[in-house]
Amino acid sequence: MIVDGKAIAERIKSSLAEEISKSKKKIRLAVLKVGKDPVTARYLEVKRKFAEAIGVDVRIYEVPTDISNNKLREKLSEIVHIEENTGVIVQLPLPEKINMQYILNAIIPGKDPDMLSSGAWGKFSTGKSKILPPVVGAVKVIFDENKIELKGKNAVVVGAGRLVGKPAASWLIGEGATVSVVDENTKNPEDYIKKADIIISGVGKPKTIEADMVMDGVIAIDCGTSESSGQVAGDIDLEVVKKASLFAPVPGGVGPITIAMLFKNLIELSK
Amino acid sequence: MIVDGKAIAERIKSSLAEEISKSKKKIRLAVLKVGKDPVTARYLEVKRKFAEAIGVDVRIYEVPTDISNNKLREKLSEIVHIEENTGVIVQLPLPEKINMQYILNAIIPGKDPDMLSSGAWGKFSTGKSKILPPVVGAVKVIFDENKIELKGKNAVVVGAGRLVGKPAASWLIGEGATVSVVDENTKNPEDYIKKADIIISGVGKPKTIEADMVMDGVIAIDCGTSESSGQVAGDIDLEVVKKASLFAPVPGGVGPITIAMLFKNLIELSK
Repeated sequence: MIVDGKAIAERIKSSLAEEISKSKKKIRLAVLKVGKDPVTARYLEVKRKFAEAIGVDVRIYEVPTDISNNKLREKLSEIVHIEENTGVIVQLPLPEKINMQYILNAIIPGKDPDMLSSGAWGKFSTGKSKILPPVVGAVKVIFDENKIELKGKNAVVVGAGRLVGKPAASWLIGEGATVSVVDENTKNPEDYIKKADIIISGVGKPKTIEADMVMDGVIAIDCGTSESSGQVAGDIDLEVVKKASLFAPVPGGVGPITIAMLFKNLIELSK
Repeated sequence: MIVDGKAIAERIKSSLAEEISKSKKKIRLAVLKVGKDPVTARYLEVKRKFAEAIGVDVRIYEVPTDISNNKLREKLSEIVHIEENTGVIVQLPLPEKINMQYILNAIIPGKDPDMLSSGAWGKFSTGKSKILPPVVGAVKVIFDENKIELKGKNAVVVGAGRLVGKPAASWLIGEGATVSVVDENTKNPEDYIKKADIIISGVGKPKTIEADMVMDGVIAIDCGTSESSGQVAGDIDLEVVKKASLFAPVPGGVGPITIAMLFKNLIELSK
């Protein structure tokens, strides 16, 4: 079964639009954007359209690429303290020389729908957050819709990054799955992947996982994104669908739901 | 090789005592203690003695067992705001009806040497903390002393608890180990344990890991503690020493170093 992320995202979109129209609340997402990179701009445009569809304002603050760490953090702090900004996100990736976590920590947990600040992360991983990191929220929606029980399942998280691997692993451990995190240092990743009931991948490298590497009946959730020759690709080869009992591919799987969950978080924070 | 935790702790104690005597700073550890449980009191006494030996004051605040969640949190908040208290810890375990994380979150990261608040946890797991949770700090000291490289090692964390399993897993992932977390829901724990280069256990159940379950040359670090008939026991059977290349047993392994790391953290926070 292939997860239709777009259809799920549309459903969430409708329910959020209804909720906002009923509440009559003014909700605004502030986005800090560094530089004019066209790929970044395209991702941002997807968010802007989603916001428009549900009646959320988006305010984009653009700063030049050569901004210093301290200036950027100051700027973000200012944006966070503007009352009209219900939530604040930083469009990633940031330029190499920027200390990402230092910047993100200017966002207070109550205005952090992306949950990338240390404060929001702490609340999440100690069970004290009402919202989940958007990508984790998206994976949860997929599991809930398909009534997948996590307790005791062998789950393998591929990639230990800040945006996918770490939050996914933390969440799965809390749900009682048996979690293994493999990364580029792992000597025998295939040993883990072959035995996985569930694979969640967030590497950003095409064909990291191919059909012959997985178990029959695997649940494969691709959260990795890379671009080659203008095509968006995931980590998991699309042939995996032949063996998977459930497959969320890239594009069209987790991605659209993640954006919907960002806005669901924003609305939750407005309460 | 058996880790001599007491000897390592003594060394840290001497260096902390020297540091404090040189700095002439007044450092005070505040301890919130709920009720009069004799086991709790005994653990606390070990900390008090360590503090005395290095010239740190300990102030114990005792509240009755039937205190409400809100009253306990209020009380802890008050203690945190007393300037003379350099750091504040809550003696665990708390009574069943108490919401532990809610209480602990009254401690600000700058006064949290045990690193159990959501704020301190967030800083730790996003790489923004100068200190480590004491048990993780203790494990790190053992690995550093024995020049153990973690990158690419198969590490198995047994137990997914708040005090050992979760922080140990989070740290090991950050260090580039390939980490699997097994817990009571895991269907095939022996499959993981048998292949582990490194085992860190924090279950609190004697003989969770026996000699026939581990690989020759394993590094086995026991962070579990339980009591039966007045004897302190760990999770890892002492027979494991016959197969291990390095073994930190209970008692006498990680425990004494963990207490030393608590005070190391306290001194770091005083800076």
